[in-house]
Amino acid sequence: MAYNNNPIGIFDSGIGGLTVANAVTRLLHDENIIYFGDTAHMPYGDKSIALIKSYAVRISKFLIEDQRCKAVVIACNTASAAAYEYLRDELKGQIPVINVIDPMIERVIEDSSIHNVGIIATKTTIASGVYQEKLSRRKPSLKFSALATPLLAPMIEEGFYNNSISKAVLENYLKQPELKNIDALILACTHYPMIKHQIASYYHESVQILDSAEVVARKLKMILAKEGLECEKDHVHQDQFFVSDFTTSFEKTASHFYPKPISLIKTNIWDNNFDQQS
Amino acid sequence: MAYNNNPIGIFDSGIGGLTVANAVTRLLHDENIIYFGDTAHMPYGDKSIALIKSYAVRISKFLIEDQRCKAVVIACNTASAAAYEYLRDELKGQIPVINVIDPMIERVIEDSSIHNVGIIATKTTIASGVYQEKLSRRKPSLKFSALATPLLAPMIEEGFYNNSISKAVLENYLKQPELKNIDALILACTHYPMIKHQIASYYHESVQILDSAEVVARKLKMILAKEGLECEKDHVHQDQFFVSDFTTSFEKTASHFYPKPISLIKTNIWDNNFDQQS
Repeated sequence: MAYNNNPIGIFDSGIGGLTVANAVTRLLHDENIIYFGDTAHMPYGDKSIALIKSYAVRISKFLIEDQRCKAVVIACNTASAAAYEYLRDELKGQIPVINVIDPMIERVIEDSSIHNVGIIATKTTIASGVYQEKLSRRKPSLKFSALATPLLAPMIEEGFYNNSISKAVLENYLKQPELKNIDALILACTHYPMIKHQIASYYHESVQILDSAEVVARKLKMILAKEGLECEKDHVHQDQFFVSDFTTSFEKTASHFYPKPISLIKTNIWDNNFDQQS
Repeated sequence: MAYNNNPIGIFDSGIGGLTVANAVTRLLHDENIIYFGDTAHMPYGDKSIALIKSYAVRISKFLIEDQRCKAVVIACNTASAAAYEYLRDELKGQIPVINVIDPMIERVIEDSSIHNVGIIATKTTIASGVYQEKLSRRKPSLKFSALATPLLAPMIEEGFYNNSISKAVLENYLKQPELKNIDALILACTHYPMIKHQIASYYHESVQILDSAEVVARKLKMILAKEGLECEKDHVHQDQFFVSDFTTSFEKTASHFYPKPISLIKTNIWDNNFDQQS
């Protein structure tokens, strides 16, 4: 049986994608992870598609050429919507590229128990309509409704989760008419797994909470197996976490998002055009 | 006595500056206001100083040349720190330019009852050190401490103010050790006047709450009087509110920030280089 002990590359505009890294580590604990958080350019939500594509290409080059990753996960909804197809075509099948949106769409349309699904995400993701468009095209019989919940990501980054403040903010959003009568809820932002249990308990477990970090990790596992890219068991490895801009605030928040101690490495992968571009 | 019935130009990266427009309207109710919210480029906090300067110059040109404003107020802390001196020099004394930082610094150093002042603001403003540097240079005997309170602006924009959620979030910030023993608190973000009363009641009125919108409005009134730029009483006028990107979400939030009905006008003042720059 073929093995590949090269690492898995995971990137995000910031630290939200660490929930995906965490889910991958839990499901594929022998795999080695290289994480890249593009903190110098966060948030991606306000940026043009052309600019996000250029960032995604540059980060992928770092992950694939410098870090020799065997697969790349775009752990960011904005970058997945803006740059996935472009990146997949640029890489011309060299290595698998996985985004956070399509595995979730597949998960939802294949689940016959889901008839009415809610979507919560940042303003940018909801306004892009990417989930709504894909769901209605792939399964026209499915009912869905979308609600922008823009305070949740900054709230989580500020350390307000699993406490009375996050409970009150969440209840305020979840009681909105858009989310009435849903039987499943897509957490379409990589920050939201941090408040998954509070969301589940709001619904008294009567609504399926679909966490894209877990769904993506399962998709990745399947692809690695299918492509013969799994690593050997118990091979020595060392996860690495790169950021394009280091702040103590980022390090503090990162420690909430990832259960093991992380040492962040600042790296400048940008060329001299960076100031003009950003 | 000389009069000038031309409008006052006020700009911000978004809608926070409407609190300044509101304070100006309350203090100078006969004056005409032209507001410009650069919503296409918000937030400024992540952008380079060079880029913010270029935005500020373009917006000022719109306010002065197209709208014939007699004075310009930079109602944004990031733009004030990044672009005020540059803008003042560019305009070469043509018309008065007022930023939100210096009038507050003057207000604090001239108040002999203030010995220990706290500063709350966004991460960008606190990290810039602009208030800290100016206070320590102008009045070395003054004690000060700064705390980044990054959840407050998105919380207010989302409509969470004067309720139990904003109370809980505020208490969480205000109880931090940085703000122990202060006798005054600078609200160094133009969103924060929206939660001024909740802050004051947290301190049971024992701490002076310094609201930059009010301080700036008073400074403007003084300058207009000194320069002979006041308008005639009861002259017919119509405030106008321009934005560089219109969303219903912006309009909804704007209605919280400004007490009178606002009709937002989308205007594209950017040239063809806009896509490359942003």
